[in-house]
Amino acid sequence: MNQPSNNTATQPRSTLREQLRGARRPILLGVAGDSGSGKTTYTHGIRRLLGNDMVTTIALDGYHKEDRAQRRRSGRVPLDPEANHLDLVLEHLGSLRAGQPVEIPIYNHQTGCFDAPQIVRPAPVVVVEGLHALYSQFLPLLDYSLYVDSDQDVKWRWKFERDVHLRGHDPDELETEIERRENAYKRWIDFQKVDADVVIKIHESHLSALAHQQYEGALPDNCYHMEIIVNPSELPLPPLNLPVNLNGLTTLEAQPFMLASVPSHYWGRKVNVIHVDGIMPLEAMQLLEENIMALTGITTELEARVMTDHAQNSTMRFTQSLVAWPFLGRISALLANGDGESEDYDT
Amino acid sequence: MNQPSNNTATQPRSTLREQLRGARRPILLGVAGDSGSGKTTYTHGIRRLLGNDMVTTIALDGYHKEDRAQRRRSGRVPLDPEANHLDLVLEHLGSLRAGQPVEIPIYNHQTGCFDAPQIVRPAPVVVVEGLHALYSQFLPLLDYSLYVDSDQDVKWRWKFERDVHLRGHDPDELETEIERRENAYKRWIDFQKVDADVVIKIHESHLSALAHQQYEGALPDNCYHMEIIVNPSELPLPPLNLPVNLNGLTTLEAQPFMLASVPSHYWGRKVNVIHVDGIMPLEAMQLLEENIMALTGITTELEARVMTDHAQNSTMRFTQSLVAWPFLGRISALLANGDGESEDYDT
Repeated sequence: MNQPSNNTATQPRSTLREQLRGARRPILLGVAGDSGSGKTTYTHGIRRLLGNDMVTTIALDGYHKEDRAQRRRSGRVPLDPEANHLDLVLEHLGSLRAGQPVEIPIYNHQTGCFDAPQIVRPAPVVVVEGLHALYSQFLPLLDYSLYVDSDQDVKWRWKFERDVHLRGHDPDELETEIERRENAYKRWIDFQKVDADVVIKIHESHLSALAHQQYEGALPDNCYHMEIIVNPSELPLPPLNLPVNLNGLTTLEAQPFMLASVPSHYWGRKVNVIHVDGIMPLEAMQLLEENIMALTGITTELEARVMTDHAQNSTMRFTQSLVAWPFLGRISALLANGDGESEDYDT
Repeated sequence: MNQPSNNTATQPRSTLREQLRGARRPILLGVAGDSGSGKTTYTHGIRRLLGNDMVTTIALDGYHKEDRAQRRRSGRVPLDPEANHLDLVLEHLGSLRAGQPVEIPIYNHQTGCFDAPQIVRPAPVVVVEGLHALYSQFLPLLDYSLYVDSDQDVKWRWKFERDVHLRGHDPDELETEIERRENAYKRWIDFQKVDADVVIKIHESHLSALAHQQYEGALPDNCYHMEIIVNPSELPLPPLNLPVNLNGLTTLEAQPFMLASVPSHYWGRKVNVIHVDGIMPLEAMQLLEENIMALTGITTELEARVMTDHAQNSTMRFTQSLVAWPFLGRISALLANGDGESEDYDT
């Protein structure tokens, strides 16, 4: 259905990595969502499929005005846009989009203090990840936008695991802080999803509800019901087939999974909602990733060097691919236009 | 995961059709369920994938003791096993399984009378389709069993369409009869699903429940939520991949669909429940059928001559394949055992 653009047709052997190396300016992706919602998981997915060398990530945590000790005294939360140097973010995004290096401030989650700022040179893809990444002043500079919208129960469980187990925060303090933050989240962060190109909703698994009479055995760990809400568009990408082995559905070792696609209405616009739950068959996953990597031109050897995170089960990887794919489509479209038409990709 | 048996490995180019031609006895499939539940749809699916010449279908309607006029006078319903010549069915199944022709009685649904009986010679696969096809006395003679378990609302709608529109029955009479029949169905027919190898449940579509905020547009016609409840087993069949094009999930023309696989408990046994809802992408369907036809050895040319029915949308065809596949696996296993081991396949 999706015809390749003329440009792609005349350069059939040029991978996305090769095309990105010749791009006129970096492509900017904004990733917003609450702290602990899973933003990093999706940023890693894009990094894994495009290659580390193709992606620079900017964490907006560094642009907080106050460190942890100052926040304790002032009582302000970093979700408040006024508690962040958003003007500086805007200035930096402009420089990065123009291909210029910037000196970005760094917040250290272990110490709760700011580290020395770092000079960052933009790779062909710049990911801007943070609480306010999709604020309206940034949107004209962003080429694509993701919002990660985890359910409160999932988010709280993850935040607890990360902040208490990995970062060593006090659990009682964390609980008090979490409760205090929820109103602020609703007031200043949540609304950004309304305009995002892709919204990722993460719920606890609903598979038991589909079981007949009774779910057999225990649900596997790390089983989530994910909704990928996508702005429908014609992507200049080849077909991407997920091979579901029907034999696997009728054997004794069959793993639970669900895949659905439902045209829906979301904040006044037409979207398509892709539902994923349970355990994606690993084989299908691998074939899918091989297809994507053939397009981007990254090799397994390169991919092995990319860091992975705690959520690397096959379903999470599958949704990473589902999220990365339309973004790769956008990149493809931008490069195709930009090569042939104008200095800049803006209209 | 499923290794082919040695037998298959040494005859890699022998199709299921060729193997069936050399079989020592016909293979018997029982298909039970209420009248108007969709039994014929699944029988047609098997016929389409194996070839008309490979399948003889016996309708148990012919074994009713009374015709329509007699039933009106007696007040008996054909769902009552006593209102059927089940002893004759048993005798005929024995003969068919031994490869002998039988003279079967024929009930004419248009006239409500019996037509002249017909001599039937068993093809390599004999499908026995009827209200009582999985009664316990028949089970030792059957190699595989299906039960079609449509929801009352779906069943009533179909029965109405068929009996009133196609068969010209009076709608008021039909409604009275349907209400009278439900207790009889529960008493004499429904329980047969407890032991069936495959149970097909057909509900109205549940997709709207998965929509985010609101389903976009109208649900397509002929959209059902189907559950295929399968006894898990290792099938001596090659992998059967359903290619789901992920590009199709994000375009403007995306059709709603759902595919899930959930290990469950069903009447005291472990099963796997495959859920299908919405519209299967036609391309995926065609590739799937091509894979199955490569196994059975039927060609598109042969297939085109097989009659189709009103429910031939791509999802119904997909579930036909899902139901036919484990049956083809059972055939494969029987033939592999029978060729090498014994005169008969019974233990």
